[in-house]
Amino acid sequence: MSDKDIIEFFLNPKSVALIGASKNPMKGGYRILNNLVANNFEGEIYPINPNAEGELFGKEFKNSVLEIEEDVDLAIFYVPNKMIPELLDECIQKGIKGAIIEASGFEEIGEMGLDLRDEIIKITNNFSKIRIVGPNCMGLTRIDIDSKSKEKGGFFSSFLVFNKYRRGNIGVISQSGMVNGGYFTHLTTKYPGLGFRYVCSIGNKMDLSENEFLEYMIEDDTVNVIAVYLESFENPRKFVEMCKRAKKIPQKTIILVKGGITSEGQKATLSHTGALSENSRLINAIIKQSGAIQAKSFYDLFLYARTFSMMYNEDKTLPEKGNTSIIVGSGGAGTILTDLIANYGLKLPTLNDQAYKTLVSIFPEWMPPNRFALVDIWPAMEKAMGERADPNMVMKKAYNSVLGDPQIEGLFNMMFCSKQFRAMSNVELLIDIIHNNPKPVFFYLIGENKEVKKNMKLLSENNIPSFTNLEDLVKNFKILVQESNSTYPNSY
Amino acid sequence: MSDKDIIEFFLNPKSVALIGASKNPMKGGYRILNNLVANNFEGEIYPINPNAEGELFGKEFKNSVLEIEEDVDLAIFYVPNKMIPELLDECIQKGIKGAIIEASGFEEIGEMGLDLRDEIIKITNNFSKIRIVGPNCMGLTRIDIDSKSKEKGGFFSSFLVFNKYRRGNIGVISQSGMVNGGYFTHLTTKYPGLGFRYVCSIGNKMDLSENEFLEYMIEDDTVNVIAVYLESFENPRKFVEMCKRAKKIPQKTIILVKGGITSEGQKATLSHTGALSENSRLINAIIKQSGAIQAKSFYDLFLYARTFSMMYNEDKTLPEKGNTSIIVGSGGAGTILTDLIANYGLKLPTLNDQAYKTLVSIFPEWMPPNRFALVDIWPAMEKAMGERADPNMVMKKAYNSVLGDPQIEGLFNMMFCSKQFRAMSNVELLIDIIHNNPKPVFFYLIGENKEVKKNMKLLSENNIPSFTNLEDLVKNFKILVQESNSTYPNSY
Repeated sequence: MSDKDIIEFFLNPKSVALIGASKNPMKGGYRILNNLVANNFEGEIYPINPNAEGELFGKEFKNSVLEIEEDVDLAIFYVPNKMIPELLDECIQKGIKGAIIEASGFEEIGEMGLDLRDEIIKITNNFSKIRIVGPNCMGLTRIDIDSKSKEKGGFFSSFLVFNKYRRGNIGVISQSGMVNGGYFTHLTTKYPGLGFRYVCSIGNKMDLSENEFLEYMIEDDTVNVIAVYLESFENPRKFVEMCKRAKKIPQKTIILVKGGITSEGQKATLSHTGALSENSRLINAIIKQSGAIQAKSFYDLFLYARTFSMMYNEDKTLPEKGNTSIIVGSGGAGTILTDLIANYGLKLPTLNDQAYKTLVSIFPEWMPPNRFALVDIWPAMEKAMGERADPNMVMKKAYNSVLGDPQIEGLFNMMFCSKQFRAMSNVELLIDIIHNNPKPVFFYLIGENKEVKKNMKLLSENNIPSFTNLEDLVKNFKILVQESNSTYPNSY
Repeated sequence: MSDKDIIEFFLNPKSVALIGASKNPMKGGYRILNNLVANNFEGEIYPINPNAEGELFGKEFKNSVLEIEEDVDLAIFYVPNKMIPELLDECIQKGIKGAIIEASGFEEIGEMGLDLRDEIIKITNNFSKIRIVGPNCMGLTRIDIDSKSKEKGGFFSSFLVFNKYRRGNIGVISQSGMVNGGYFTHLTTKYPGLGFRYVCSIGNKMDLSENEFLEYMIEDDTVNVIAVYLESFENPRKFVEMCKRAKKIPQKTIILVKGGITSEGQKATLSHTGALSENSRLINAIIKQSGAIQAKSFYDLFLYARTFSMMYNEDKTLPEKGNTSIIVGSGGAGTILTDLIANYGLKLPTLNDQAYKTLVSIFPEWMPPNRFALVDIWPAMEKAMGERADPNMVMKKAYNSVLGDPQIEGLFNMMFCSKQFRAMSNVELLIDIIHNNPKPVFFYLIGENKEVKKNMKLLSENNIPSFTNLEDLVKNFKILVQESNSTYPNSY
């Protein structure tokens, strides 16, 4: 099988045997089955456990894979490390072609784990008889249809049950199981608009590694953004080569968090996935050469992924020069934002005459607008209110003037969210303008927490990024700049 | 009057005249009165407006301050800029000693504004006849009693009405009015545990500046943390001197965001508060010399303020060497955290024998704990569950072993928050240990958003900082390190 076919096989199995299925809800073997069934996995499912009898979720227990009459594509292992070689041998006998091993206790525990690995290599004839994802992982997730829909579905093999998810254009490859576990739950409940296509926990990558998954997602049109967490590069040259290839594909972006970039972090990876990490300088050179966008934490990784996901969903024109503009209702926020923009290498250009003239028309005489692209909208609002005009029209005019200036590639809009002042911060009225304009618009939301959340949700549903931290906002625009995609959005 | 007496006078007026009070709820003059009355300001209030009749909130309108029979301490101005000189003159005639001018349209608008300023200087005889806060500000706030309490109260002169606030040990001095307006609302609703004593919007600081307010808060025992936003230093030498003095006072910390640290940002400050900013290098030298903690944005400013506020509330011992420790349930999070710790100049020391032995006793044989202070707790949890032991006891033991090691000055605990797994992530059971230990404990919370919020609230009520971003967590511990208080928590 080609690498692509192998991953296709792992992500779209027609039938799975769950080795270590359990009736005890506190055990992972129960929850994997629950996860598969509750999320409408369409293939056949065979729970395997010689100590269990009867059925669970309507699926009958068997003692061994050898008792299954039909063909089985994939085995999912949730049994202690020591039991794996023997059970793997049975899978090979049965003709099963792939195994996801979720148990830990291999490379990361030292000698005994390394012996177990050697045994597996021998039994599988160096993975020629059966291919392996893991061990020490949290399985693979494929999302076909949103959890909100009655027809929700896909393939869910994590030992955490997922109730809330959306299908989207993000694919994840991670050496941290958490990303296909608690962190996935975190993401899908914190950012309800965020949609995923695949989440692949690759663990110790004894056999299959980031290489095959990355290759697959680069070629898969349903994936635009590939978020990667690695503790080691399986093949640095291949990684760089694949990232370079991805950069040539429209609407394809790779974002990477590399764990173990310090010697201290490397000690941590050793006890986590048994990864023997590379020299820090080498790592940085690999990342720089690859042109992948580097994030420092899971938080940044998924905020960046969200931003790209939204931009691709809306087919936005990504900035090339980093020329942006600001509309704020607070001079202080405008000042801090301007400093951050300068420090992150972005620019606020001088407005062209047409844009400036339109702004002049909405501003009071005693407080004319700036000549550069920082619009402190408050005096214009005051003028409108004094003239009993609609403040929303003022905002629309400001939007059109700034976004109409060809040099300007994006807009940062600060919005004060308050129940009392809803009329003046009507995000809804701006959504059409934003949808119909190819330039990215980012929001900075402050005010009453409930109103902030409400607006954030509305914006998110419309693929408009919003932030409550100005530095996050600037960093997330900076990563979009295409010339400098390879530059790390360093803080100053 | 001494500087201290002046600020005392402004923050604790016995009676105020509100010049520009209005019956129109869309006007600031309405909302300031609303803010004063709704929050039980105890002094007399006189609404002044020759175009209004009758009463508002039980207070009778007068045409001019000259019609008030009693003595008046303070005037609050919410009228257009051009009207101010004449009305100020009336205040002087009335013997009013202080004025808060909230109107904009002075230094920040250029020539006409500068003329107005000159006129005010002349009328007030260079501020000897009446002292001024502002113009272009959002007033002063003093919080005496929480808004939750029936007796809620203080002095509230912002033109935004505040409904939710807590009294606490944070004092704010800001050249951005937003901080005594929409951003204050944001903070008090986003971080309900956060308590403030004063919020002072100083605007263009035509007369009184950060100098007098800072001096006052340094000497005021009810304030531990002073959060400052400045667009210019009124007197850099004095600022440095005051910060140095504050560093010698126990439980007193100054945190600063300086707006206009880039030439672009300086253009922004000019149109905001008319601040003619200093050279970037000079600014950085001033900040470094002052030893104040520098933040890059409002977000960092108030997250840092929250952290110090909590530490002082609990009388925690602040770290000196930056030696910390980690308890996580995810190797990936542990690895990223370890990298961040190293990059921010913190350390994870080798555990002493006693701590290590205790950990060994709770870990399974096949997966012993690390020798250095990174505890990946999962194998110990699995062992406990296998032995039908209480996983919370495992956590408690891990806490005691790590916090019992004298070299270790703090603990970072990652907690997975899930309704299903509440038994395993019972934050409540840890609160006593944390309260009774002088070392700071910070939480990294992930999982279902609702559960995260719930735990965050509980932790916050107990003065325990929690974060959903590992870099925020590390930065907020870094600023506590006393040796390097003057070092800017730079990103790497």
